[in-house]
Amino acid sequence: MASFGERLAGVLDSRGPLCLGIDPHAFLLAEWGLSDDAAGLRELSLRAVDAAAGVIGVVKPQIAFFERHGAAGYSVLEEVFAAARAAGLLAIADVKRGDVGSTVAAYGEAWLTTGSPLEADAMTIVAYQGLGSLSDPIERAVAYGKGLFVLAATSNPEAAATQTAEVTTGEFAGRSVAAGIVSGVEHLNANAARLGSVGVVLGATVRLADYGIAGAELTRTPILAPGFGEQGANLRDLPALFGAVRNNVVANVGRSVLRAGASGIRDELILRSHEVRQAVSL
Amino acid sequence: MASFGERLAGVLDSRGPLCLGIDPHAFLLAEWGLSDDAAGLRELSLRAVDAAAGVIGVVKPQIAFFERHGAAGYSVLEEVFAAARAAGLLAIADVKRGDVGSTVAAYGEAWLTTGSPLEADAMTIVAYQGLGSLSDPIERAVAYGKGLFVLAATSNPEAAATQTAEVTTGEFAGRSVAAGIVSGVEHLNANAARLGSVGVVLGATVRLADYGIAGAELTRTPILAPGFGEQGANLRDLPALFGAVRNNVVANVGRSVLRAGASGIRDELILRSHEVRQAVSL
Repeated sequence: MASFGERLAGVLDSRGPLCLGIDPHAFLLAEWGLSDDAAGLRELSLRAVDAAAGVIGVVKPQIAFFERHGAAGYSVLEEVFAAARAAGLLAIADVKRGDVGSTVAAYGEAWLTTGSPLEADAMTIVAYQGLGSLSDPIERAVAYGKGLFVLAATSNPEAAATQTAEVTTGEFAGRSVAAGIVSGVEHLNANAARLGSVGVVLGATVRLADYGIAGAELTRTPILAPGFGEQGANLRDLPALFGAVRNNVVANVGRSVLRAGASGIRDELILRSHEVRQAVSL
Repeated sequence: MASFGERLAGVLDSRGPLCLGIDPHAFLLAEWGLSDDAAGLRELSLRAVDAAAGVIGVVKPQIAFFERHGAAGYSVLEEVFAAARAAGLLAIADVKRGDVGSTVAAYGEAWLTTGSPLEADAMTIVAYQGLGSLSDPIERAVAYGKGLFVLAATSNPEAAATQTAEVTTGEFAGRSVAAGIVSGVEHLNANAARLGSVGVVLGATVRLADYGIAGAELTRTPILAPGFGEQGANLRDLPALFGAVRNNVVANVGRSVLRAGASGIRDELILRSHEVRQAVSL
């Protein structure tokens, strides 16, 4: 069985870094002429998967917009993951779950188990309760060929005070919270040939130096980078932003592409994918 | 409309601090003789609500154990919230959601909107992306008479390095991450007569002094305290742990009570509730 890191590396090399964030905001459902219910959610999400198929390699449903619709939203989500799998896309569940270890284990079971109703290829996860709290889903990811992306330095400006806070005890004393996470994650990937299966989230809108994060700490670590498009970062700047690890980056675009509507989304993805592939010389 | 803080204060005064964590672990389903599927989940959870009704005032479903069962688990969860409401219990959705502001807004809509399928009385939430990222659900909670509990110092030991990290910029520079959250939250509650509607999570297993948190910063802030029972803290120690703000505490017990099984859970709740009410002199 191929690891998630191997599968992701294959996708990045063959299809480029672009990832479509499937973020069915209420305002997007309205712009698409859809109802703000499970039926509208289903239509937007499955059209987004169709548009991505064969053009890019990764999609990232944002679970909050499914959760808004309760159990009916989760039924749609099960369909969306199945459709993405059938289309040969890698699907990252953007859930940002986190808790004590025995509870996080259940979240790992939910999203990273082969054959589970919500099976995805990877999930985003939060280490506010410590990287050590995530050991069960990390082991699960390795066992099932699945992946994780741990939040490190996120794209929103309100996050900086927490993520630049200085750790005072333990292995990462003297470093920022975000840098400690990056360093701990890279350590988990030490044996990977190219990319390991545990990634980090680093916003394209942040300067890594502000967090004391060096590119050399990310050699084998997949990077999920939100912040392109409406949040302000430009796909053409990906190499400048991520330097030597530019080829580890999954570059997410969401609203800026989904606004093109059902008829325009595929062309928009083709253009954006071309733009970012040129930037990283693929 | 009564605020969540007012409703919670009424419940704490009349029924005491005990909260039943509805944590349907796979091992508990097995111990109860139930199948590890949505039917077993439904049976355990609804029996737990029945046992709590009239004995205590608050229940806290842990969403990870519903999410394990996908959309079917979320259907059960909708029933559990409705049953809790019908039984006059306050229900805290233990979801620990967090994200950038525009996404967190959707989580707030999911859990804190009157009439939504997953409507709860309050939800737990994570500020890894900054307390500022939570402004939309905070406004929503106030508008709908709902509440929030923001993770501050959690009960698991792996969390300490992150939560004691020292903030270096902004309003809370010089304080720990957890203390900054506590201080920011108390500020939100400044106008409450007794308790405001935005609480914090403080584990009963931690020493607040280790985080630089003073009790006086929590005068009007509800405190959700996990860590009693199997995680090691003793209900009788609640006054020693929380001092002057002992009457702001929602004391959660989960596995240690659920293990009593369908036939024993109500008696176990009566005993534990008596124990903690005596401790806080109610």
